[in-house]
Amino acid sequence: MTQLEAAKQGMVTPAMEQVAAAENVPIELMIRELAAGRAVLPWNPKHAPSRAMLVGRSFRTGVNANLGGSGAIDHAAEASKLNVALDAGADCVMDLSVGPDAAVSRVALLARCPVPLGTVPIYEAVEADGDSVTITPEKLLATIETQAREGVDFMTLHAGLLRDHLPLACRRKMGIVSRGGAIMAEWMQQHEAENPLYTHWESVLEMCREYDVTLSLGDGLRPGCLADAGDDSQIAELRVLGDLVRRSRAAGVQVMVEGPGHVPFDQIAEQMRMEAELCDDAPFYVLGPVITDIAAGYDHIAAAIGATEAAANGASLLCYVTPAEHLGLPSEDDVRQGVVAFRIAAHAADVARKLPGARAVDDAMADARMAFDWDRQFELALDGKEARRRFKMSSQKNGNLDCNENEYCSMCGEAYCAVRRMKRINEKTTA
Amino acid sequence: MTQLEAAKQGMVTPAMEQVAAAENVPIELMIRELAAGRAVLPWNPKHAPSRAMLVGRSFRTGVNANLGGSGAIDHAAEASKLNVALDAGADCVMDLSVGPDAAVSRVALLARCPVPLGTVPIYEAVEADGDSVTITPEKLLATIETQAREGVDFMTLHAGLLRDHLPLACRRKMGIVSRGGAIMAEWMQQHEAENPLYTHWESVLEMCREYDVTLSLGDGLRPGCLADAGDDSQIAELRVLGDLVRRSRAAGVQVMVEGPGHVPFDQIAEQMRMEAELCDDAPFYVLGPVITDIAAGYDHIAAAIGATEAAANGASLLCYVTPAEHLGLPSEDDVRQGVVAFRIAAHAADVARKLPGARAVDDAMADARMAFDWDRQFELALDGKEARRRFKMSSQKNGNLDCNENEYCSMCGEAYCAVRRMKRINEKTTA
Repeated sequence: MTQLEAAKQGMVTPAMEQVAAAENVPIELMIRELAAGRAVLPWNPKHAPSRAMLVGRSFRTGVNANLGGSGAIDHAAEASKLNVALDAGADCVMDLSVGPDAAVSRVALLARCPVPLGTVPIYEAVEADGDSVTITPEKLLATIETQAREGVDFMTLHAGLLRDHLPLACRRKMGIVSRGGAIMAEWMQQHEAENPLYTHWESVLEMCREYDVTLSLGDGLRPGCLADAGDDSQIAELRVLGDLVRRSRAAGVQVMVEGPGHVPFDQIAEQMRMEAELCDDAPFYVLGPVITDIAAGYDHIAAAIGATEAAANGASLLCYVTPAEHLGLPSEDDVRQGVVAFRIAAHAADVARKLPGARAVDDAMADARMAFDWDRQFELALDGKEARRRFKMSSQKNGNLDCNENEYCSMCGEAYCAVRRMKRINEKTTA
Repeated sequence: MTQLEAAKQGMVTPAMEQVAAAENVPIELMIRELAAGRAVLPWNPKHAPSRAMLVGRSFRTGVNANLGGSGAIDHAAEASKLNVALDAGADCVMDLSVGPDAAVSRVALLARCPVPLGTVPIYEAVEADGDSVTITPEKLLATIETQAREGVDFMTLHAGLLRDHLPLACRRKMGIVSRGGAIMAEWMQQHEAENPLYTHWESVLEMCREYDVTLSLGDGLRPGCLADAGDDSQIAELRVLGDLVRRSRAAGVQVMVEGPGHVPFDQIAEQMRMEAELCDDAPFYVLGPVITDIAAGYDHIAAAIGATEAAANGASLLCYVTPAEHLGLPSEDDVRQGVVAFRIAAHAADVARKLPGARAVDDAMADARMAFDWDRQFELALDGKEARRRFKMSSQKNGNLDCNENEYCSMCGEAYCAVRRMKRINEKTTA
């Protein structure tokens, strides 16, 4: 039985109990949201992640970190990146490895991974030989089943990109920038046939139901530049995704919908509204979106800006973007930068949405700042290690070795510190 | 004659000509906005910055970088930081130095600075001896005049923080976190007297008119944590700032208004609307705002998120926040990180506001990406040096030494590159 089927029957599963306790969420609310499909709990029993995640508008906004390599994969390096992502606070991860080493990478990561892990099965199912692309429904379904049996908790499937969409996509400035979407499109063009994920959707649903794999409906037509945002092809695919949501739910399969991409800041709220409308409030899982095309080297910032606006307007899971985006594979440090940037976005949106309790940690930080309690500040900071390192470095430069005792920082120095002055003003006022 | 007075008479000054050409702005629009006080052109003839800046809702959003040290100031280091800020694309800078070396630092920076330079004169005018604060109107006005004569283009003056506001500020979680505001508040408390900048406002205006110093009305009561945002004290000060705007304009003095601070993401748009209403559309110059209190070490990201929302909703000049905020003085690299993060915010907001021509660079980047023209991509990127460094580093790791010739990057590798695939799809479609 899937978490969706259990919720519909009012049953509380162990995974639900665990996540409700960890997130301090009322059981009734969780059951109601899961049963309606407005939330998902990606939790394949074959993997049984010890840190379950609840994705939906009524709950904390989540952050996903993409891992994985291309070509000869350094498995130790990927394991380290997983640790960095978890240490930085990722709520789930995806293994996007491609090539002959991908299966080994996935199994290794699954064994180490306490949070839900997602994949894009088409990367393994496709056979590319030079310029020709081979996908057989049998291989595709077998790959999905293999990965489901191994414990993959959620899968991105680009089932909504149809043949009819290709002429629309070709009119775009950048066409299709989704790896999986481009594979599907090239196959459909070469074979003059419909998307096999779409034509075999009922078989996909059967397997996902059996293993309780949460579907993440890929947006093969996510805009790859501002100019392509919100165009006819994107909306056409989104309408198909809405139909697939309804079919998945009817089959008892948990489902969320992936979103853009590159979107001008002013269009994000409307895109979130449209997604909720066309996809019956399915949880929305966005990649960024980046809000300019010219931030290469800093795309984690461009994307965190878009992600905040997206989550404040209804997106529930944020796929990180790292500083390496558009330039290459991320390093360990890039993974950390990406996760922290997106935790800022997710938390800021939770505060903006007035999620119960979200602002408590900000208020506690304000108190710690007034008290010059540096240790407490580092404890409350999203990346306390980095905050402590920076504070020590800049304080010691000024000769204050015992800097945790300082009632000031090097920004203003002792004499000009506004907080010191404010404490004096407060004392006199109270006296 | 100030730029405001000239604009009111329909005169086109050399500074106006220069900025109109550089920014590709219609002269008539600029004159109209300057004359109405909806825009300012900070340009002290004693400094005569060669790269003038136009600040207002009808024009490109600007970015300010704060420089300056506390205590023993390393002037060479500050000169380097100025170069880094300019190289990264700052439109103006402020020298926030405090202490005995501050005057030397300012004169040195002014001599090197091709963009408008701002200061906070109270830092030099105040005499603090232990816990007692001395400000005399004579010293205050003399300091303003000295700095104006030296060529300071715009000055932050905390004239709107009044005695009546102190009880309100003391009710806050963090009270007053503005350095200048806290100095004024402590002086008012100790001397049981009104803010001398407020009581001597006409004399301040006379000097600012004489040297065409643009006023930047400081928000001494900017919230220092989310809990304090939009409270009674902040609004009370903003109303006074509105009065000071009207008095400044009437005296022929250019004026802009400083804004928060720490503000939850959902409150930013309303704060921008309120500022425009209470301050008769004076240009708004915001510090961030940061949208969470727990991002120490990454506050440039938290602030860039808030700044994008602020600029998309009417703020015209963005004061950067660096990764060192709340922890210490920024390093050279922090300065660069801060400026780039804020250029992302400013540009994204210009695109969102549909500023004519703003998106052209994004479209050009999309074209360069489709063409695998890496050199063009680095030319168009906000920080092309960093983008090139990252691309080379991650490509060479994969053994591609001549990476600028590569029609892919290490993110997906050659076989899985969506853009390569899309080009093939397009070719077949056209054929």
